[in-house]
Amino acid sequence: MDIAELRDRILKQDRRALARAITLVESGRADHRAQAAELLEELRGSGREALRIGLSGTPGVGKSTFIESFGMFLTAQGKRVAVLAVDPSSTRSGGSILGDKTRMERLSRDKNAFIRPSPSQTHLGGVARRTREAVALCEAAGFDVVLIETVGVGQSETVVAEMSDLFVLLLAPAGGDELQGVKRGIMEIADLILVNKADGDLKATATRTCADYAGALRLLRKRAQDPDDFPKAMTVSALEEQGLSDAWGEMGALSDWRHENGHWDKRRRAQAQFWFLEEVKQGVLAQLDSGDAKAQIAELATKVAGQAITPSAAADKVLKALDIRKR
Amino acid sequence: MDIAELRDRILKQDRRALARAITLVESGRADHRAQAAELLEELRGSGREALRIGLSGTPGVGKSTFIESFGMFLTAQGKRVAVLAVDPSSTRSGGSILGDKTRMERLSRDKNAFIRPSPSQTHLGGVARRTREAVALCEAAGFDVVLIETVGVGQSETVVAEMSDLFVLLLAPAGGDELQGVKRGIMEIADLILVNKADGDLKATATRTCADYAGALRLLRKRAQDPDDFPKAMTVSALEEQGLSDAWGEMGALSDWRHENGHWDKRRRAQAQFWFLEEVKQGVLAQLDSGDAKAQIAELATKVAGQAITPSAAADKVLKALDIRKR
Repeated sequence: MDIAELRDRILKQDRRALARAITLVESGRADHRAQAAELLEELRGSGREALRIGLSGTPGVGKSTFIESFGMFLTAQGKRVAVLAVDPSSTRSGGSILGDKTRMERLSRDKNAFIRPSPSQTHLGGVARRTREAVALCEAAGFDVVLIETVGVGQSETVVAEMSDLFVLLLAPAGGDELQGVKRGIMEIADLILVNKADGDLKATATRTCADYAGALRLLRKRAQDPDDFPKAMTVSALEEQGLSDAWGEMGALSDWRHENGHWDKRRRAQAQFWFLEEVKQGVLAQLDSGDAKAQIAELATKVAGQAITPSAAADKVLKALDIRKR
Repeated sequence: MDIAELRDRILKQDRRALARAITLVESGRADHRAQAAELLEELRGSGREALRIGLSGTPGVGKSTFIESFGMFLTAQGKRVAVLAVDPSSTRSGGSILGDKTRMERLSRDKNAFIRPSPSQTHLGGVARRTREAVALCEAAGFDVVLIETVGVGQSETVVAEMSDLFVLLLAPAGGDELQGVKRGIMEIADLILVNKADGDLKATATRTCADYAGALRLLRKRAQDPDDFPKAMTVSALEEQGLSDAWGEMGALSDWRHENGHWDKRRRAQAQFWFLEEVKQGVLAQLDSGDAKAQIAELATKVAGQAITPSAAADKVLKALDIRKR
């Protein structure tokens, strides 16, 4: 299939073509990368825009169940939903999140849903680029909502937040009044905290946990891109499919507010620039591994190891000798 | 004071000269940087080597009390002890850890101890370089042990581990059999886990917590640079000064083993190379902010924001136009 045909079929919402295009952007082969770039350039002007929702949650929080319930809720509203995953650890752990679609059996059979497992890839930079491109493809294929799931290892939440319009943090009910081991920084990027498992024996605990987080959120500095009552904490039960409509209502309210106040567009522009700069940086660092730079670095690295020169003095030597210039 | 005099006085273990030299390496001024580089180069061959201990612990674990008790224990053994801190957040939080020496009143008055607060600095790369250089100065000034404390924000633990010979994780007794919110990865870099507050009402809990962590450590893959019984978990009471001698004994045993098996030297060499490469990378990225590169990046960033080009295509353009070359 050539790129023009792939483009046309994606625009016609052909899921097979979409899957194939994602495989293309996931490939590391140079010819595939060139084709992927061409395809993305062709689709850039599609004018279609999805709501990109970043989603993170600690293990055991019931993330798969939530995605399935929330996804089914959305498709029942007539929305088309794509689910992507960012898991920099997938190679190491020997499998990928979402790899086992049986975890979301109903959703994966829904013709208005599209689930794509995380590619096996250790380098977070590579995962980020491919996921961003997959998001762009899903948008061009007319999906209304793109859920980007992350396991929350290392920097992956920050990466997902940088490609999402909204960021949702899913938490489990916690005994006692102590906040769970939520990483610093994650509270600050969350737009909505959902305390899952607000059902059966855990319902009261979930309500209490939610109040604790609501309190903690009030302590955070207000962000300019938020209406007064955000970020917000709510309870849901993915199992009993409770609270999903309210959660979706809040996402819509926040999204509308940001559109009306210009923050939506500003954020997308800033994100595009962020990723542009990230790719330039990664590319420049890769150049250190070739040509003049590589030889000089290798030579000095040996001296550094032998304590013949300090690391800083050796680095200064390299930096004085090399320069980034026009080809 | 000129650099030769500063060097001589540091070699004579003059604490004032040491403090002055650390101020020099902390400075961002170009002339200070040049002087600092000269001084470090002069001191490189001193042949003095300290045991560098990285130390991390969650807030509330009693880290200051532990450092004071452990430091006093060491000076009572005739050791000279320096305490440094890595806190990338110190500017934001409005103060620095160890900034308030009254937290370690006894130790700060001990003539065989030297306590240096973390410099106010947001950029972790800068903090890392300055701390490494301060460690080198403390070694040249004849300290036997250099404790490098970190608050554990973001990547700071990894940074500290990369400049330490041993890494110690200090934890509090935890109720129940659940492991505390120890970040993934930290367990893997810890050589010794010390469960503090093994005193009074918390003693039994501390013992149980210690057993839990010992169990968790056994699940981790064995590392080549460790003897069979490491990493290890133990209880201590900084308050009652219990267990400090045992902890120090274990640190010594591990250090001896690594020296005998060549891992000590291998690790120091690898760390020196790591920091050399880090500084080269940071320096090269800084070059993107000047000359040809800066102008082209600024122009394309505007187009990226306006969706006139995708971030990846724009990055490719920059990378095709620029090259790292010999000056």
